[in-house]
Amino acid sequence: MDDVTFAVLGTGGIGRRALEVSQHKDALTPVAACDRHGVAVDFDGLDVEELLAATEGNIDNEVATDGGATAAGGGVKQHGENRGVVASEQARTSEDPIQEIIDRGDGIDAVLLALPNYEHDFIPRTADRFVEGGYSGVMIDVLKRSRVIDMLDERADAFDDAGITFICGAGATPGLLTGAAALAAQSFVEIEAVDIWWGVGLKSGYEDNRGTVREDIAHLPDYDIETARELSDEEIEAIIDDHDGVIEFEDMEHADDVLLERAGICDAEDVEVGGILDVRSDEKPTTTTVRVTGRTFDGETATNTFQLGDETSMEANVNGPALGYLKAGVRRNRAGEYGVFGPAELMPGF
Amino acid sequence: MDDVTFAVLGTGGIGRRALEVSQHKDALTPVAACDRHGVAVDFDGLDVEELLAATEGNIDNEVATDGGATAAGGGVKQHGENRGVVASEQARTSEDPIQEIIDRGDGIDAVLLALPNYEHDFIPRTADRFVEGGYSGVMIDVLKRSRVIDMLDERADAFDDAGITFICGAGATPGLLTGAAALAAQSFVEIEAVDIWWGVGLKSGYEDNRGTVREDIAHLPDYDIETARELSDEEIEAIIDDHDGVIEFEDMEHADDVLLERAGICDAEDVEVGGILDVRSDEKPTTTTVRVTGRTFDGETATNTFQLGDETSMEANVNGPALGYLKAGVRRNRAGEYGVFGPAELMPGF
Repeated sequence: MDDVTFAVLGTGGIGRRALEVSQHKDALTPVAACDRHGVAVDFDGLDVEELLAATEGNIDNEVATDGGATAAGGGVKQHGENRGVVASEQARTSEDPIQEIIDRGDGIDAVLLALPNYEHDFIPRTADRFVEGGYSGVMIDVLKRSRVIDMLDERADAFDDAGITFICGAGATPGLLTGAAALAAQSFVEIEAVDIWWGVGLKSGYEDNRGTVREDIAHLPDYDIETARELSDEEIEAIIDDHDGVIEFEDMEHADDVLLERAGICDAEDVEVGGILDVRSDEKPTTTTVRVTGRTFDGETATNTFQLGDETSMEANVNGPALGYLKAGVRRNRAGEYGVFGPAELMPGF
Repeated sequence: MDDVTFAVLGTGGIGRRALEVSQHKDALTPVAACDRHGVAVDFDGLDVEELLAATEGNIDNEVATDGGATAAGGGVKQHGENRGVVASEQARTSEDPIQEIIDRGDGIDAVLLALPNYEHDFIPRTADRFVEGGYSGVMIDVLKRSRVIDMLDERADAFDDAGITFICGAGATPGLLTGAAALAAQSFVEIEAVDIWWGVGLKSGYEDNRGTVREDIAHLPDYDIETARELSDEEIEAIIDDHDGVIEFEDMEHADDVLLERAGICDAEDVEVGGILDVRSDEKPTTTTVRVTGRTFDGETATNTFQLGDETSMEANVNGPALGYLKAGVRRNRAGEYGVFGPAELMPGF
């Protein structure tokens, strides 16, 4: 496969780390990055080190408290003195940064949507803009919510007509762990249960990942995506305090279920996702584990297991896989396969 | 992806189980099977149940003791009263069963080479015949030996010209475990070590898998592929007795190493493969485990782990993955990607 160029929409925790990890990937060249304030484009490849250094401590990944949604940020507010990506000397301000990426789409094989998703139709609506703008290529997100997949599915025909291969839920979970479940399922002819259990220690990474923490809170029994979006920073801190910094989640609305069903691995109802988030330690409070239980063709029942080392950060487990799925998406796109795909569908035809 | 038709060359342990497992796979239709004695072809789909029942207890997967190699079997001798696949009412005798498959290649998307490999160029030579016969499609093997990959690589241009996508080493290990290593590597930007350790309990499956046991013996320090081929059944039994039925293997010449290097996952020299075979028990003597140790982009070192449940048989872990990789190969072939691919290369562009 030839070189792959990609753009990142959003320069919060995920967008920044994706740029960083891409430096370790051969034949993967970041050529554009934007946030609500501006855009950086360089088809010879962005200077990722400069961009990250200039924007460090300037994370722009919080939900808007003014309720406003602008073109590029979809309801984000800024931190720090400079304005997001524009702090980089490669970037310039823009009234409509996303449109600038769309207008240069011919030179961009894939677009990673690392955008806030408190408005859970923000990524689908952004995809609409790419369709309208005549983009043809790969779009990829690392979203967690099952309902976003449905919204993307409604657009499958439009993607197909446009020549867009949309890869959804391609981070850690769903993403890496969904792929692991698809692989682990290969010993079996029938799957009884897929159990995904994650541990995240997010002390030093907390500032960079407020968006993730907010979204996780939306999975608690007393909250949903709308009420979590309304929470002030102080209210979030209070919730964390209530749990002594360690929050356990059960039966989460994680898209792993629908993504495994799409790929024909198992029924969505046989998939359970839960985990423990500790924002006061960098140690994982529990080992991230995927267990796939099934029946073999010769009648045995067994459980295959995939475990992530406790020392791997959430960022490491999101961004490596995301870029791998991105490259897989480009391969599909070049082969003329358009529409919506989940990570398990990108695994060998299992 | 549309329906996939496939043929099986060889109806020993692997060929028979591949046919059986394919019955559980949607959109995968076995249309041909052959051994040295004959061939069965039905483009509406073989009656797998009849074929397996008719040939049960009639396994034809032993090395020739007369040194002879015929067109279809490459040095196999028969057991039982009937002659291999011809015991099935769907099959008929043939002077050149492989040529009959080649001649019907237009209707066959993929060919699984479940052939004996004591002559380790038998599979490459069979591939040559498909090239010469104008076949265009997928060829796939479940071989273990690194050196066979080299022989296939020498044919990459010929495959490319012919429109053949050759998938090599796509069983359990290499195969399922190679894919697991590629996936587990995604948390890291640099891999330090891949450690593959397998356990196989082969009491009730022993008769069906003499070929596998013979090949494993070739990995022992005092043997190689040539000397193992010369062993009589009695000599093999004596070796097994010497080890009280439990044979441990270290630093095996398993192609996982070159297949992971091909896919850009790590250097071949960082991969170690070993395991324990117990032919006197169906219980695995040790849990099959893949350990991938690496460094994350943020500087941590950790180990991700993939384990197969002890109750899954070798046959379950070979044939499900093989058919998955077969389907992945067909996708590549239809996209115009020809040449030689290993299992890790079929994983998302990791």
